[in-house]
Amino acid sequence: MLKGHQTWVFPSKPTILATGTVVGPFEGKGPLAEDFDLIHGDLWMGQDSFEKAEQKMLEEACEIAIRKAGLQKQDIQFFLGGDLLNQIISASFAARTLAIPYLGLFGACSTSMEGLALGALMLENKAARYLLCGTASHNAAVEKQFRYPTEYGSQKPPTAQWTVTGAGIALLGTKGKGPRVTSATIGRVVDMGISDPFNMGAAMAPAAVDTITAHFRDLGVSAQDYDLIATGDLGRVGHKIASDLLIKHNLAIPENIFTDCGMLIYHPDQPVQAGGSGCGCSAVVSFGHIFNRMKKGELKKVLLIATGALLSPLSYQQKESIPCIAHAVAIEHIQ
Amino acid sequence: MLKGHQTWVFPSKPTILATGTVVGPFEGKGPLAEDFDLIHGDLWMGQDSFEKAEQKMLEEACEIAIRKAGLQKQDIQFFLGGDLLNQIISASFAARTLAIPYLGLFGACSTSMEGLALGALMLENKAARYLLCGTASHNAAVEKQFRYPTEYGSQKPPTAQWTVTGAGIALLGTKGKGPRVTSATIGRVVDMGISDPFNMGAAMAPAAVDTITAHFRDLGVSAQDYDLIATGDLGRVGHKIASDLLIKHNLAIPENIFTDCGMLIYHPDQPVQAGGSGCGCSAVVSFGHIFNRMKKGELKKVLLIATGALLSPLSYQQKESIPCIAHAVAIEHIQ
Repeated sequence: MLKGHQTWVFPSKPTILATGTVVGPFEGKGPLAEDFDLIHGDLWMGQDSFEKAEQKMLEEACEIAIRKAGLQKQDIQFFLGGDLLNQIISASFAARTLAIPYLGLFGACSTSMEGLALGALMLENKAARYLLCGTASHNAAVEKQFRYPTEYGSQKPPTAQWTVTGAGIALLGTKGKGPRVTSATIGRVVDMGISDPFNMGAAMAPAAVDTITAHFRDLGVSAQDYDLIATGDLGRVGHKIASDLLIKHNLAIPENIFTDCGMLIYHPDQPVQAGGSGCGCSAVVSFGHIFNRMKKGELKKVLLIATGALLSPLSYQQKESIPCIAHAVAIEHIQ
Repeated sequence: MLKGHQTWVFPSKPTILATGTVVGPFEGKGPLAEDFDLIHGDLWMGQDSFEKAEQKMLEEACEIAIRKAGLQKQDIQFFLGGDLLNQIISASFAARTLAIPYLGLFGACSTSMEGLALGALMLENKAARYLLCGTASHNAAVEKQFRYPTEYGSQKPPTAQWTVTGAGIALLGTKGKGPRVTSATIGRVVDMGISDPFNMGAAMAPAAVDTITAHFRDLGVSAQDYDLIATGDLGRVGHKIASDLLIKHNLAIPENIFTDCGMLIYHPDQPVQAGGSGCGCSAVVSFGHIFNRMKKGELKKVLLIATGALLSPLSYQQKESIPCIAHAVAIEHIQ
């Protein structure tokens, strides 16, 4: 199953039977609105804190995925989740509500693909019949933790990104219809010394390139083997850096197939600076928009590379640079 | 591989080839001092923050385990780690130093067994040849985050526990000599409404009992099948509650084989109230003391149940109760 240094190949090709995506009002005004299952009209979502709203989205996304797969909660053996809040409370509290055996993950914005990779590994090994994996972020909860409460109205530089309010869940099974997970590349931590939490794209781009390079090398494939290669949330600034680095490595990816979830989720006139970010960004774009395009037959083979900035408010205050990581998952859907 | 609802059986029995344990000065004065590989003389460990000291212990424990196994860093495919600090920075920064592909986990004090279970699953599936898993905690770093900086000298009730300063790492491989992982039970989140971070043992005891019950049920085994059953860090208060709950469930575990890592690590005259806690507690006791007893032939079959309190300083401030979890791993060593 291990190919090369860090890639898993899944001969049984575990299936993504259904997904559930839930977003906030701002994402509901973006170009991908039709790809989301549930759009909330306000940021509070009937809760008395933004943290509880984040938890609620995650629970709703799980319920939607279970319902769309025609299953019951009791059919699911495991929930693999995580988020950006201290001690991943959204995922842990959602796991309490679900009451399904739970594996807590932390990969910051790479959590969606960390969960999908580990979930596929579990199914490949018959360690589960069905499982849920996914993550969430909430703009107001994350901003106040990592930067400033949004109510302060503090200004942001053009390199800053907008934390997506959203939760994305995938329900995986060993059989059934749907896009199938064929391989996954687990990333190393890469840190080029950037310490500015308003420039995550630049910090994360080298990690994305490291994992893409490893994926191509381990499997002996190239960009031409995919219809779409989408990073998680590099935004416009990080996407440019990643593209340039790949050209330097002689691994240039054609522009028409190389994109970034953080560039897709908002309209150009939505004031999000360099694009979207947050755990929910790659989760809702991958499990909403890209998943739907695969189901429609528009895309057959995609490579998703979720990128995570593994900083904490504490490490930032202690003037540490930002360690970054990226995990890649290849999905194919041959109808 | 899945047995019953939530238990994995590993027919290939992945081997714990070596372990590395590093502790602080206070743990070095406890009854298990001889079982630890490295005892630091002070809490700073040559670093300029307690957080960096925690990271350093984790890196040292990895190095020790690799050296004891007679391997090189390049032989190791993956590092599965986590800790208690916000956004698990000790593990992520240690992963940066190691430069080994990294899967970040969060299970609070259950992280040691979450990592061991997932690591065994990966080896069972030939998804790795060698991997490292483990966790760390540092008394001064964790106390200031979850309760008060220790320098404040705030008083604690008798139910409080003492966060262990220590890092424990296991190096797993598919072949070689050493205790072998035979099964693992992944826990559900259990929350009985306790919200007092000075009474973690009481909060976590029902989760430990839930997982032990599931383990016995899924595998059709009982306490008599083990020479030792050790929970992670319930301390004296939680251990009594867990024992009583198991009696109620008609699953009483004989006193001579039922213990808790948090009760073993300190002498009765060390002023730790109800016992030890923290990610490092079960990690250093399991991978140090219990691992050594197995290697000496004193114990053949053990069940380790690491218990985690999945609270965050934020959820506590928002008056939430404490969701808890426990993951169990069965290890046997037949020489």
